Amino acid sequence: MSLIVQKYGGTSVGTVERIEAVAAKVAAARARGDQVVVVVSAMSGETNRLIALAHEITPTPSPREMDVLVSTGEQVTIALLSIALQKIGCPARSYTGGQVRILTDNVHSKARIQEIDGGRVRADLEAGRVVVVAGFQGTDEDGNITTLGRGGSDTTAVAMAAALEADECQIFTDVDGVYTTDPRVEPKARKLDRITFEEMLEMASLGSKVLQIRSVEFAGKYNVPLRVLSSFEEGEGTLITFEDEDMEKAKVSGIAFSRDEAKLTILGVPDQPGVAYSILGPVSGANIEVDMIIQNIAEDATTDFTFTVHRNDYPQALKILQETAEVLGAREVIGDDSIVKISIVGVGMRSHAGIAATMFEALAEEGINIRMISTSEIKISVVVDEKYLELGVRALHDAFELDRPPEQAA
Amino acid sequence: MSLIVQKYGGTSVGTVERIEAVAAKVAAARARGDQVVVVVSAMSGETNRLIALAHEITPTPSPREMDVLVSTGEQVTIALLSIALQKIGCPARSYTGGQVRILTDNVHSKARIQEIDGGRVRADLEAGRVVVVAGFQGTDEDGNITTLGRGGSDTTAVAMAAALEADECQIFTDVDGVYTTDPRVEPKARKLDRITFEEMLEMASLGSKVLQIRSVEFAGKYNVPLRVLSSFEEGEGTLITFEDEDMEKAKVSGIAFSRDEAKLTILGVPDQPGVAYSILGPVSGANIEVDMIIQNIAEDATTDFTFTVHRNDYPQALKILQETAEVLGAREVIGDDSIVKISIVGVGMRSHAGIAATMFEALAEEGINIRMISTSEIKISVVVDEKYLELGVRALHDAFELDRPPEQAA
Repeated sequence: MSLIVQKYGGTSVGTVERIEAVAAKVAAARARGDQVVVVVSAMSGETNRLIALAHEITPTPSPREMDVLVSTGEQVTIALLSIALQKIGCPARSYTGGQVRILTDNVHSKARIQEIDGGRVRADLEAGRVVVVAGFQGTDEDGNITTLGRGGSDTTAVAMAAALEADECQIFTDVDGVYTTDPRVEPKARKLDRITFEEMLEMASLGSKVLQIRSVEFAGKYNVPLRVLSSFEEGEGTLITFEDEDMEKAKVSGIAFSRDEAKLTILGVPDQPGVAYSILGPVSGANIEVDMIIQNIAEDATTDFTFTVHRNDYPQALKILQETAEVLGAREVIGDDSIVKISIVGVGMRSHAGIAATMFEALAEEGINIRMISTSEIKISVVVDEKYLELGVRALHDAFELDRPPEQAA
Repeated sequence: MSLIVQKYGGTSVGTVERIEAVAAKVAAARARGDQVVVVVSAMSGETNRLIALAHEITPTPSPREMDVLVSTGEQVTIALLSIALQKIGCPARSYTGGQVRILTDNVHSKARIQEIDGGRVRADLEAGRVVVVAGFQGTDEDGNITTLGRGGSDTTAVAMAAALEADECQIFTDVDGVYTTDPRVEPKARKLDRITFEEMLEMASLGSKVLQIRSVEFAGKYNVPLRVLSSFEEGEGTLITFEDEDMEKAKVSGIAFSRDEAKLTILGVPDQPGVAYSILGPVSGANIEVDMIIQNIAEDATTDFTFTVHRNDYPQALKILQETAEVLGAREVIGDDSIVKISIVGVGMRSHAGIAATMFEALAEEGINIRMISTSEIKISVVVDEKYLELGVRALHDAFELDRPPEQAA
């Protein structure tokens, strides 16, 4: 007998019919002998309907009251799913976040889970019941309702799985798993049977939005095996797990990309200690997140310093950097907001030389000019002109033979 | 500085615009220097929408899960009203029933309040905040969400007022107060400035559905002055309070009536101990509520026994009574479901003779035949043929000069 936590998102519970379909899936898992905890989101559209009601009153409602308001969305779903389960003879009981109890900090609308009391849930499971938990919500120490932010139901599911020491946390979505890259860009993209947490984190942070990044971090931290699978189709999905023998065979697991990039360069800054801080301090002070940072070796006692930001932050970052240039007596500030980032990700590249060479060669063969390069232990990222995105992704997918299962790959 | 509990029903908070109008009323009370607790219902239509969702799944959803489901209705309103109050500069904080905490028994969908912890609410009031409480809901000892049944928000308001020792509990409705009788039947009906709890109970139980009867009982029991007034019009409404000097002047305060009556008579039953139980036992065993019961003196060692029931229960009650007649060897069972009950209500009649005579005279003058009579300390009820309802109500309204304020009445 295994203990499974299943999570169904808003689209999967978007209508009463779909809720009944979810009930059938859950009951089937229980019939196989598993103990099941189900975490659900609000019915799709419901959260937006509630937010619109508040915005009819004011564009700036208090975060505390917004949490009271939107948390009703998941509460409706847990009741309806429990009713649907009971109808087909499957004992079930619903819990709000506060009832579980899921204790969070008091940062309304983006609270973080601090502790979960699994006692009541465990007692229900022992009594043979399915436990249906409202995702996305908790209460702080004073009993105020909090929410984890949009997509937070994934985090609830992983946290429940960790607290209950579940055997697996299954995230049901509208895709059937994690792919080697976005199939809309490369039709030959292949579903992965397995991926490591580290790879998944790199993929997610680079724009493959299958899972909320915090839930993946959480799962990794608490050793919760995580599986992504489809609400609508049968299949094993993709298991996100720890590195194992088998996975070593694949040097590169997937290709991630991000369209929302912009880069800025400050030219001819004095090459002296503290200059990096002088440049980036004002940027991060304006709450602008900086991604890649590159500083090349200095010539003539001056150096060039380049970094990338989200495209939305480009105009503000440019203005800040121009002010900094004046202060530092730099030569010039240049920027470009029509760039993209393409990354190859794989735990296998740790132990294999030549991956970077293969990557650069494949891009060169297509005449794609590389504007920036940045590497981490399991990732190599390049910045290229926007127009090369699709071509670059397909060239790399081919070069690393990602359309073939790892056993067959070179 | 007074402490006021205000309650607004579903129609009063039916749209965002109406919620903003309620916010203005609440803020005005606070601006007058009062501490204000507001109890609200779900937006009109919302509870039915939620019930319909559950009924799409099954006609017999579990009461526990129905309470989880429908309690979200009030939770939405408390958040929106708090947001609307904050928008106009009035500090406010919302509380669900569980957050207050309103402790109830565990009878889902018709729970009774057992205890209210006023601590958190009092702290907010002291800090200058308006407190917005979800009506109709609480939690049981195990933290399960319960509801008080439809209309239960009135009960929540009165219970909050009792727990906080409020100076007044104001129930805002779509009528501007309690009338001497239904103005749709007697256009000369007059709004009462005051009425006693006992009178209000008799009026409510006889079909004047301004307030939920349990909330009036509760207010009487805990000495909470209760005021009924309009959400939509200005005015002082009607104060429901304890008997005082002033009120003695009115012998009859109002005329209540009920259209949903049916009467049954069993003729020629043996006049012996236990016969009343033999007749009524099977009726109440079938969960049929019996209202008036009349047994006249016996002649020839047999007696006749008459009682009234709700018109919906008439066919079943008739069937049961026919079976009983056979067992007891009674002569005959007769019944009539085209009757109505008209009652005059007033604490003043305790100390005044001749009220009944005036009543019977007024009806006789209109040629209305009285079929049954029943009296209590502050009420005289008669059963008459359905067709005489309007005529009877108007005749009695005239006879007791209810269109004139009490000081001027004879």
